[in-house]
Amino acid sequence: MIRLYDYLISGNGYKVRLLLTQLGIPFDRIELNITKGETRTSEFLQKFPNGRIPAIEFDDGKLLFESNAIISYFAEGTPFMPIDRFQRAQILQWLFFEQYSHEPYIASVRYLVMHPDVADARRTILDSLMRPRGYDALAVMERHLKSREWFVGERYSVADIALYAYTHVADEGGFDLAGYPAIRAWLERVKSQPRYIPITRS
Amino acid sequence: MIRLYDYLISGNGYKVRLLLTQLGIPFDRIELNITKGETRTSEFLQKFPNGRIPAIEFDDGKLLFESNAIISYFAEGTPFMPIDRFQRAQILQWLFFEQYSHEPYIASVRYLVMHPDVADARRTILDSLMRPRGYDALAVMERHLKSREWFVGERYSVADIALYAYTHVADEGGFDLAGYPAIRAWLERVKSQPRYIPITRS
Repeated sequence: MIRLYDYLISGNGYKVRLLLTQLGIPFDRIELNITKGETRTSEFLQKFPNGRIPAIEFDDGKLLFESNAIISYFAEGTPFMPIDRFQRAQILQWLFFEQYSHEPYIASVRYLVMHPDVADARRTILDSLMRPRGYDALAVMERHLKSREWFVGERYSVADIALYAYTHVADEGGFDLAGYPAIRAWLERVKSQPRYIPITRS
Repeated sequence: MIRLYDYLISGNGYKVRLLLTQLGIPFDRIELNITKGETRTSEFLQKFPNGRIPAIEFDDGKLLFESNAIISYFAEGTPFMPIDRFQRAQILQWLFFEQYSHEPYIASVRYLVMHPDVADARRTILDSLMRPRGYDALAVMERHLKSREWFVGERYSVADIALYAYTHVADEGGFDLAGYPAIRAWLERVKSQPRYIPITRS
């Protein structure tokens, strides 16, 4: 069976858990505590040199890391990934936006707030840079969703899963979504999809 | 003709320039100075809500942003993007690694060093966090390239282009590649590819 190396409160891990569950693909989940260095052991690094979860080990020994690469792989050939070439490019556009302009701010602020005892040099720029950039990412999303139900091609896709993962728990980092009604309505649409699971469900 | 919104010293822009040139696809380049807010005008934001280059405007009005989404789109159906499903996942794995673990450190340190007059809160974590993480990314690449010529599938691909863009100018940010012989040999292999252009060539 597919093995998913994971950390329950990780939104990046949740993307993979949510998609595999919605696709009905069974998997074994191996919980690793990233705050205790469990992804930096020599055994883990041997398989996954970047030392991060989520990461996938297939039955035949193949290995894959990076959450958005993993969900793109499993989505291929399913309704979660379009067939149209330009829509596929738009999916990637939003997946890269998520990892470059959204996750480093929305997710990292949440991580720092949820782990007050972890020493991290980024705390010095949390309020001056990270939080404002998180709101910048939310503003881009709000604008896009004002005239659309979903991020790409008028249907629920991996782009929605990737952006949902940390947006729906942004409040845990102190982000206030009151001024983002289109995002809030979209979060509800994602939450009502078949086979939805919450981030806390392993 | 395709319009590429670009900034000459940007490695993200260079990825697109290099691939389009190597594919023989003509394009108009529109230079925007990101340090002067030229990607934050209302006209630009109307088209590209995240306010970043590179960004593409097609003849039919279609718009696409995020460098790695753009190069994946143009590479489709060419030798720069594999056909095998798992190799395609590995391409995405390295493209996401580049935008998440490499570019924010290697490229951003270079940007801050090259623009000493630009006020930026990240300067306070440049040496304590950003530079070490840049070397972490280089270590992951060095390890991967020790037993391989190219990042994926034993041939030059968009994964190499994406990682080459900022690695080959890492010295401009003060990174020393002396201890990374496999990376240095790989940089030379990329540089010797047909239709190669330097980052300074518009």
